[in-house]
Amino acid sequence: MQIVFALYEEFTALDAVGPYEVLSRLPGATAVFAAMERGPVRTDGALTVMAEAALEEIDRCDVLVVPGGPGTRDVVLGDQRYVDWVRRVHPTTRWTTSVCSGSLILGAAGLLRGLDATTHWGLRKELEATGARYVPERTVEQGRILTAAGVSAGIDMALTLAARIGGDVAAQAIQLWIEYDPQPPFDSGSPAKASPETLDFVATHLAPG
Amino acid sequence: MQIVFALYEEFTALDAVGPYEVLSRLPGATAVFAAMERGPVRTDGALTVMAEAALEEIDRCDVLVVPGGPGTRDVVLGDQRYVDWVRRVHPTTRWTTSVCSGSLILGAAGLLRGLDATTHWGLRKELEATGARYVPERTVEQGRILTAAGVSAGIDMALTLAARIGGDVAAQAIQLWIEYDPQPPFDSGSPAKASPETLDFVATHLAPG
Repeated sequence: MQIVFALYEEFTALDAVGPYEVLSRLPGATAVFAAMERGPVRTDGALTVMAEAALEEIDRCDVLVVPGGPGTRDVVLGDQRYVDWVRRVHPTTRWTTSVCSGSLILGAAGLLRGLDATTHWGLRKELEATGARYVPERTVEQGRILTAAGVSAGIDMALTLAARIGGDVAAQAIQLWIEYDPQPPFDSGSPAKASPETLDFVATHLAPG
Repeated sequence: MQIVFALYEEFTALDAVGPYEVLSRLPGATAVFAAMERGPVRTDGALTVMAEAALEEIDRCDVLVVPGGPGTRDVVLGDQRYVDWVRRVHPTTRWTTSVCSGSLILGAAGLLRGLDATTHWGLRKELEATGARYVPERTVEQGRILTAAGVSAGIDMALTLAARIGGDVAAQAIQLWIEYDPQPPFDSGSPAKASPETLDFVATHLAPG
């Protein structure tokens, strides 16, 4: 089972690494980090990772993971090679997935028209512009397309998918191995739970221009 | 504020990337991925990341993050350069932290003697052999040393630390931005919660030799 993490400049590292730590531990899984060109790929911060394959060398895969990040904008508005590749490989996959703004790329490829889907809480309108119905859930499953909410939601999405692929026990074992027993010190992970001060801080310091 | 992620061959990617996605978003923070040598560093799987600095070029930092992973064994039993560097830089930090088996490295550097600390649930004895008292908590704070439990616990530890550094609102805003509102589809993230079948699956398929 080949799992392709399709990277691009300025993706958000955790969007890819969260699902990777879950899905790559399924027995028989092979993870491939790929991008338009082989070689270093900058994330949206200080981290650079290596793409070991070029997307255009890959003509099929079992699982496709499209991460989000500020670079989504260039992927969607840029030269279309990445979006064209997603459109081409999707019919070959068992599962096509996205995390955070990665769903805007699936949408740009025309895969979400008329479907429920999710994305980062700040991008509802952008998702709906692709013809999807935004659902504020952690993971939205529509046939063989799974979309996850923002950044860290990819871990939850991947556990759901791991259970579909390998069964509940395999998914539970991976959860145990990565000790995913979350106990955040605050309960501020969604806009409905966040204080006005927190929302102000996000707008001032964290939201991209 | 300089945050150094001190990598080594066969570290576990999420151990570093989880805290990175939290801490690097603090206003004024600069993240640096470093290793004994600059250049590509293999994780314990298909992912390779770039070290942009050599550890021995760094003689001080504000926050040190030591990830875990199967490579911990070679770091602790190998040529001691990494452990010596940790011992040397620790007096300069405001915060010295570890995730998963990274605490075995802090222990090898002599930093945990007589202190409470934590690690991956499977490594209690190895941690105690360094003179620490194992505590089965998600994050253990002892003065300016924070240790986190296995792999994904680094996200929770980093939110705790983000609040110490930047205040509760900053930490809550980062939690909201990365949409860390965990809703795993199973409740199997600690040995006490896992079924016998799940523990068997871990022993058969996931636990390293």
